[in-house]
Amino acid sequence: MVRQGVLEQHPPKTPLTIGFECSGDVEAVGENTEGIAVNDRVIAFTDYGAWSEVVTVPAKFVYKMPSNMSYHDGAALPMNYLTAYIMLFDIGNLQKGMSVFSHNIGGGVGHAIGQLCKTVEDVTLYGTASAHKHEAVKGNVTSVFNRTSDYCQEVRKLSPAGVDIVLDCLCGEDTNKGISLLRPMGKYILYGSSNIVTGETKSFFSFAKSWWQVDKVSPIKCYDENKTISGFQLRNLAFQQGQDGYIRTVMNKLFQLYSLGKIQPVIDSTYAFEDVAEAMQKMHDRKNIGKLILDPAQEPKPPKVQSAPSVEGASPPEENKEKEENKDAVVNGDQQ
Amino acid sequence: MVRQGVLEQHPPKTPLTIGFECSGDVEAVGENTEGIAVNDRVIAFTDYGAWSEVVTVPAKFVYKMPSNMSYHDGAALPMNYLTAYIMLFDIGNLQKGMSVFSHNIGGGVGHAIGQLCKTVEDVTLYGTASAHKHEAVKGNVTSVFNRTSDYCQEVRKLSPAGVDIVLDCLCGEDTNKGISLLRPMGKYILYGSSNIVTGETKSFFSFAKSWWQVDKVSPIKCYDENKTISGFQLRNLAFQQGQDGYIRTVMNKLFQLYSLGKIQPVIDSTYAFEDVAEAMQKMHDRKNIGKLILDPAQEPKPPKVQSAPSVEGASPPEENKEKEENKDAVVNGDQQ
Repeated sequence: MVRQGVLEQHPPKTPLTIGFECSGDVEAVGENTEGIAVNDRVIAFTDYGAWSEVVTVPAKFVYKMPSNMSYHDGAALPMNYLTAYIMLFDIGNLQKGMSVFSHNIGGGVGHAIGQLCKTVEDVTLYGTASAHKHEAVKGNVTSVFNRTSDYCQEVRKLSPAGVDIVLDCLCGEDTNKGISLLRPMGKYILYGSSNIVTGETKSFFSFAKSWWQVDKVSPIKCYDENKTISGFQLRNLAFQQGQDGYIRTVMNKLFQLYSLGKIQPVIDSTYAFEDVAEAMQKMHDRKNIGKLILDPAQEPKPPKVQSAPSVEGASPPEENKEKEENKDAVVNGDQQ
Repeated sequence: MVRQGVLEQHPPKTPLTIGFECSGDVEAVGENTEGIAVNDRVIAFTDYGAWSEVVTVPAKFVYKMPSNMSYHDGAALPMNYLTAYIMLFDIGNLQKGMSVFSHNIGGGVGHAIGQLCKTVEDVTLYGTASAHKHEAVKGNVTSVFNRTSDYCQEVRKLSPAGVDIVLDCLCGEDTNKGISLLRPMGKYILYGSSNIVTGETKSFFSFAKSWWQVDKVSPIKCYDENKTISGFQLRNLAFQQGQDGYIRTVMNKLFQLYSLGKIQPVIDSTYAFEDVAEAMQKMHDRKNIGKLILDPAQEPKPPKVQSAPSVEGASPPEENKEKEENKDAVVNGDQQ
């Protein structure tokens, strides 16, 4: 969506290096930088610019990685897991015995939701996914439905009273459906960042259109029905609303869960920078299950003689599961 | 508001015994009633009918009182403390270091909010109250503002980023103000039941009017601003939405807090049934700080020779602080 200029109402001007998260070693730090030193293994959360061999970011968005975390896991973690954790726990207040419904359960946030739900006793998780992803996600959810099914009816068959938490990355008519699916005391949460970044919408343009069609909700409806309407946008929280301190506390909780083996980012495949077009085409075609990683240390694939790859006509996806670690990517800690 | 017929859009028909909560001893139980026995000291939460010497209620809304709880405390507890607890903890997810804003901090729910906020470390509580109640409530809050002040501006002076939780029982234009007062990740909760019951609104009719004037909110606004819009109505939750099991778990938590001395209902004064007109006039005039209790065991006040009391021209309030316990009020546990 960034590439197509539909992520934001006022997209940034080109030329632009895209990418919101990365991992690597600290090469240099700015004056008066505290808590981060040269050679630290870190994750950075960035307002664009992450798809690069050298990245400059404010120290407040740099996090030291646990010693047992790989660079690939580190680069795959921030947006999906921050989003899932904050929605489930800080907004949704997920408790033992509750039920959760989420769209795109096969996507990056979906995997994080599945893993985080399992950290709480007796949680029921319903999700939607494309048919070809059902096999891959069935271990993460109680029940998975087709993306195009009447999912409200399917959920009501299993939980007639509705669910406690609905996580919606589709908006539009799905907002009304999601709110209707709540049981009393239920919470509906609209989010978008990760869905947008991974492009896992019905189509880019139907998504952008639905954005302006969603019904407004009266607080009095919330009062009568004992329901909660909520929204979550990680990038706004970090880069416009000054909540870097809060985000850091959540990252520390995620690092603890990772070290305990409770969460593990799902990585679909890794690519050299030179093969970015193939990676993006795979994402666009929704053939990935989990994250795609760009690794500057990785060798590019040999060019095909018969059909040279291009952005529009990328070569057919060949999964590259090499787990070579990127030790050359670097992040500058620059106090802002 | 019940008496004036403005609590509900379709008020119940007269003749009607009003009252939503009471305490007493169980006189009889219906067939197959479990968990409640004759002579148990209980609290009952009722859909009207509580202001009576004998009350018949479904067993699912009857709760055994802790042995150290007085009947007066028991009758004063359910609506205010259930409402405050559920809003702060189950919807608001109140955590260490957070800030809360509440209207009517001198009211019944307000006192409960003040006491429950103190059970969490380092919580800042802002509130509004009528000027004559400031002295009585100042121990419960960090800062209290006049009901008619520009409270948003006052709060912003002390917490420039806004607050984490806004509890609003006024609705109308205060809804927009409340939402604007939220910091990122903040939660606005519209509630009404207790406010309506204690009549602590600007005026009955401005309240009823504001009910239809409140602006609708787009979920996309919640998304952009990382905000939550929520509503809570205890009576709907109990009597229309079948959440008696959930309410019982919260009652048990409240009983624990009471037994630990963390919460203590504030009782303004007690009255014999015969003096109900005086009690209601005091509430209407907003001269009470805390609950008014009707106690059928209490002797009525001697009639004044010079001016006989009536509903509209009630005798001047004389506080009756006698704490004689009502051991005659009874509740029938009747399985529904």
